[in-house]
Amino acid sequence: MDRLDRQFGFIRETDGLKQVVRQSYLADGSRRENDAEHSWHLALMAVLLSEYADKDIDVLRVVTMVLVHDIVELDAGDTYAYDNEGNATKREREVKAAERIFNILPEDQAAYLRSLWDEFEGQDTKEAKFANTLDKLQPLMLNDASGGKSWKEHGVKLSQVLNRNKNTAEGSKELWEYAKENFIEPNVEKGMLKE
Amino acid sequence: MDRLDRQFGFIRETDGLKQVVRQSYLADGSRRENDAEHSWHLALMAVLLSEYADKDIDVLRVVTMVLVHDIVELDAGDTYAYDNEGNATKREREVKAAERIFNILPEDQAAYLRSLWDEFEGQDTKEAKFANTLDKLQPLMLNDASGGKSWKEHGVKLSQVLNRNKNTAEGSKELWEYAKENFIEPNVEKGMLKE
Repeated sequence: MDRLDRQFGFIRETDGLKQVVRQSYLADGSRRENDAEHSWHLALMAVLLSEYADKDIDVLRVVTMVLVHDIVELDAGDTYAYDNEGNATKREREVKAAERIFNILPEDQAAYLRSLWDEFEGQDTKEAKFANTLDKLQPLMLNDASGGKSWKEHGVKLSQVLNRNKNTAEGSKELWEYAKENFIEPNVEKGMLKE
Repeated sequence: MDRLDRQFGFIRETDGLKQVVRQSYLADGSRRENDAEHSWHLALMAVLLSEYADKDIDVLRVVTMVLVHDIVELDAGDTYAYDNEGNATKREREVKAAERIFNILPEDQAAYLRSLWDEFEGQDTKEAKFANTLDKLQPLMLNDASGGKSWKEHGVKLSQVLNRNKNTAEGSKELWEYAKENFIEPNVEKGMLKE
C-alpha cells in the first residue's frame, strides 16, 4: 500500500494548485484564473489543436506535460511574465520546488514527471515546443476575451507581448498566426496594447 | 480559418466551467472546487493511477473523457449526488446541453467529444468504467481531507455513500478497496459518516 499512499499523497498535495492564482482573468473578466484551471484548459486545447503542430506529436505526452507544468508553483508561486525581479529568481525557486513535490510520488513516477517538467523547461523537443505554444496562446485568448484586463492593469506594451512570444511559433506557425490576427492585432487597433 | 474559429469558440465557451461550482470542498476545506479544477485533478489521476485499472486501458482516451465529462454542466449546472429532485431531470438537461455545446466545434471533433461523453454516461467500456472510478474517488479523497465537510453539511449517511459507489469497483477493485479503507472507514469511526 506504500505505493498508493505516495500516489494519493501527491494527488492530495497538488490540490493546492487550485489556490495558486495567475494574472490572467477568466474570459468574462470576473476574477483571475488559477493554475489548476489553466492546466485543464491547456490539456483540452492539446487534444483539440494537436492537428496544427508543425510536427507529429505524442498527444498524451503533451497533455501530461501541460497537466504538470505548473506544479512547481505550489511552492514557488506564479511569477508574472512581465515581473523582471521575480523572473531573476524563478528558476532557482522552481527547481527546489520540483525536488520536493515530484518526490512525494513513487520513484519511477517522480522521475517521469520530473523529466516531463525538465523537457518543458528545456524547450528542445517538439512536444515541449507545442506545449509552450498552448501555454502562450491561452492567456492571449483570455486577455482578448476579457477586454485586455490584465494587460491594462500592468500597462503591458505590444513589444513586451511580442518578445514574450518570440518562440511561440516554434510549436505551430498556424496557431501563432491565428493568435496574432485574432488576439493581438485587434487589441493594438483598440489601443489596448500600445506600441 | 472557420475551423480554428469554431475550435477557439469552444475553448472560450468552456472557460465557463471554471465557474460551475461543485459540492466538494478543496482538501483544506477553504472553499468548494469547480468543474475545471475537478477535471484537471481527474486527468492527473488518470495518468498516475492507470496501472490499477482492472483491464488494459487507453490512457489518452480516459484523460480526454475526464477532461470533457462535465462540460454539459455549463448549461445544466452541477447536480449534487444526493439531490433526488435534481437527479430526476438531470439526464434531459444534460443531453440538451451536449447538443448545443459540442456542436460549437467542427463536425468531426463535435462527434468525437460527444461520443466520449456518451461513452462515459453509458458506462459500458473499460475506459468509461475507469473514468467513473476516478470521478467517484476524487470527492471521497477531498471529503476525507476536509474533515467530511460536504458530508456534514448535507447530513449524508454511509448507506448513501455506498449506494452511490456501487459501481466504483468496476473500473478498479484495488482503488475502490483503497478508498474504502482510507477515505470511508476512518470517517465512520470518527462519526462523520453515520450508519
